[in-house]
Amino acid sequence: MSDVTTTDLYEVTMALSYLLEDMSRPATFSLFVRDLPSERGFLVSAGIEPALDYLSAFRVTPSDVEDFASALHRPYADLSPLCGMTFTGEVRAVPEGRVVFAGEPLLEVTAPLAEAQLVETFLLNQVSHQTAVASKAVRSVLAAAGRPVVDFSLRRTHGTSAGMQAARTAALTGFAGTSNVAAAVRWGLPASGTMAHSYVEAFPDEEAAFRAFARAHPGPVTFLVDTYDSVRGVRTAARVLRDLGRGPGCAVRLDSGDLGDLARRARAELDRSGLPGVRVVASGGLDEYGVDTLVRSGAPIDVYAVGTRVGTSADAPYLDSAYKLVEYDGRPVMKLSSAKVTSPGRKQVFRRPGGDDVIALRDEPGPAGAEPLLRTVMRDGRRLGPPDTLPQGHARLTADLAGLPADAVRVRAPRPARAVFSERLSELTADLSDRLRS
Amino acid sequence: MSDVTTTDLYEVTMALSYLLEDMSRPATFSLFVRDLPSERGFLVSAGIEPALDYLSAFRVTPSDVEDFASALHRPYADLSPLCGMTFTGEVRAVPEGRVVFAGEPLLEVTAPLAEAQLVETFLLNQVSHQTAVASKAVRSVLAAAGRPVVDFSLRRTHGTSAGMQAARTAALTGFAGTSNVAAAVRWGLPASGTMAHSYVEAFPDEEAAFRAFARAHPGPVTFLVDTYDSVRGVRTAARVLRDLGRGPGCAVRLDSGDLGDLARRARAELDRSGLPGVRVVASGGLDEYGVDTLVRSGAPIDVYAVGTRVGTSADAPYLDSAYKLVEYDGRPVMKLSSAKVTSPGRKQVFRRPGGDDVIALRDEPGPAGAEPLLRTVMRDGRRLGPPDTLPQGHARLTADLAGLPADAVRVRAPRPARAVFSERLSELTADLSDRLRS
Repeated sequence: MSDVTTTDLYEVTMALSYLLEDMSRPATFSLFVRDLPSERGFLVSAGIEPALDYLSAFRVTPSDVEDFASALHRPYADLSPLCGMTFTGEVRAVPEGRVVFAGEPLLEVTAPLAEAQLVETFLLNQVSHQTAVASKAVRSVLAAAGRPVVDFSLRRTHGTSAGMQAARTAALTGFAGTSNVAAAVRWGLPASGTMAHSYVEAFPDEEAAFRAFARAHPGPVTFLVDTYDSVRGVRTAARVLRDLGRGPGCAVRLDSGDLGDLARRARAELDRSGLPGVRVVASGGLDEYGVDTLVRSGAPIDVYAVGTRVGTSADAPYLDSAYKLVEYDGRPVMKLSSAKVTSPGRKQVFRRPGGDDVIALRDEPGPAGAEPLLRTVMRDGRRLGPPDTLPQGHARLTADLAGLPADAVRVRAPRPARAVFSERLSELTADLSDRLRS
Repeated sequence: MSDVTTTDLYEVTMALSYLLEDMSRPATFSLFVRDLPSERGFLVSAGIEPALDYLSAFRVTPSDVEDFASALHRPYADLSPLCGMTFTGEVRAVPEGRVVFAGEPLLEVTAPLAEAQLVETFLLNQVSHQTAVASKAVRSVLAAAGRPVVDFSLRRTHGTSAGMQAARTAALTGFAGTSNVAAAVRWGLPASGTMAHSYVEAFPDEEAAFRAFARAHPGPVTFLVDTYDSVRGVRTAARVLRDLGRGPGCAVRLDSGDLGDLARRARAELDRSGLPGVRVVASGGLDEYGVDTLVRSGAPIDVYAVGTRVGTSADAPYLDSAYKLVEYDGRPVMKLSSAKVTSPGRKQVFRRPGGDDVIALRDEPGPAGAEPLLRTVMRDGRRLGPPDTLPQGHARLTADLAGLPADAVRVRAPRPARAVFSERLSELTADLSDRLRS
């Protein structure tokens, strides 16, 4: 089953109608997030590259048409006008890793109406989720203030594909590694891992477990020390490491209890044992809030492992995203439904050096010195360049974060940065709204 | 890349160590949810069948070993003891659709230690997410009190696989359909869909849009009426349906505004137009809370479409799930870490006719008249029967819900039903805990 049928049924029914009505003029849809979740000062563009991969490969096969017909309980022939359709349009996108705000298009798709419609569900799915996770993940990186953060989310993400996307997205935001082997191999990320409590329990005692683990793994090892009693566990770990002459690169992991207090006691124990090079890793229900508290308390934690809450963007597991028609056949359009009014026309987002953005019409000149965020990345259904790499995305994010006001970046109660509409866009919105209401 | 590498690195390092230490005796791991999210009175077992599919197909290939070696920066030969490993164990499971509570095993895996370890991440991933979504989805069905509920979540699930799982899981809980074409085809579910606001906007006016849609779709159609003004939209829809002599099976959809009030006005308009058979569909940010409010208000809504919040289990996007070693080589084991103490030994859950459960040791006789929930579904790595179907799961859920106390089933502030430990399990837990602490 191809990705083409991974779509909402209504994309199919609408696309079919457009073809039958000969409505094949170019339409522009704009993908944006209406409002930021309450604990987000900004969003991080993500999911763009997977979305472009999808568009590049998009082709409605006879088997897809069979599935459409089956879902609609209609004969194949009725749906056959869709057969063979590919994506032939233009895409403008905010590259992955760039900071964006509410209302700013992350993608604009311009294509014959049926094509632009049929790809809606998949594009929204990719960009919404990955932008949500990226926007959560970067906050752990910020909270850790330079200490490495690693991704342990795979076991509780929404399926394994979500786990792959979480690992990729976390890397985009600057994570130092992931526990997910497949993701590490696929994207060349450092793989990270220790041992489970079960490992310790399977041995007669903790020391036997640590020694066996070290036998199997001659390189740096991390011992999980809280299976029975964390402080005794650190002592045992220190004894084993010293006995074996291992230390630098090795670590102990705390996974429960008062992580700050236990980290202090672990650090003291390790230092007393002549193991200043052995690091302390903390995990266990952490996200940016937990990391922030620990970092501010001065806890001697060297590496933070975050998992479930970040991989599921637990405090904001979805974004209020939309894919809205803004122009058809050169005519700007908009919706008036209460509280969900959209703004018409193809757009550009201009970022001024101070950091505040202007959402303008596409062909408007930007403010002096402003940088346009949306770039044309596909034309005639073909990518204009090689896919962005994760390091490229991360470099963009680092630069963008440096330009953000401090109160948008802070972990707690951030104040979202906002974009304003250009005068011309505001005028067009008001005029069209009046016309439609009259 | 096979599913085998979709795992946390530590499963690999532990499994390798077990093989090198010749620790190949049977181990039992128990998969359960420690605590219920605050707004859940019970959980619905889900993700079991996909977990069993994974175990049936599990085989570590040379390519997997290459990936393991690459992730660990070690030579292939070091990891080669894992090559060729399959899953040869026994699995006992609570079948999909059954109601479960905190602490009750949903799966127990008994297999040579390395095998049982290596499958942890994938099993947790499948069962945690799908049980979370099922436990959310069923609440919409309960809130709708007999009215059909359909799944519109695909566009904002955590990737497209999560969307497939959400559609499947929702069907398990009694949803009447899904917008997801691929899911509808794969699981034989009714596909559901209407039109987007963009469809209406692409036409010169609403009436032209409705007429075009009806031309393309000779069967029952649903018109989205809130693009510009909902009440005028209903009037237009009624006019078109009447003109075309269509009605029964058709519907209007409201997607914004005060859905209860608009539904009343829509119903009145449709009835006035001689279209009593045209139904009212409501959507737009709904989950069980919104549905409950509307149903209690008496809103004349015939079909509820729920999406993002249900598909992402938004108010509880993850479960506090665990996969814990409870026995190794016949020896019960447990963990003592603060607040995360596990209970030792292989288990059985007995459900008494009144509905309350007893978590007991596997070989304990159950209370009189109690039904054991865990069934052996795999032995020697092979399924013992054909996979459960979704209707089978749904039938089980319906029966279990009928036996639950009303305050566990209610949508708002449910009081979670609880399981108690049997006397023998309590004794074993206390004894072993004392021994480990001494």
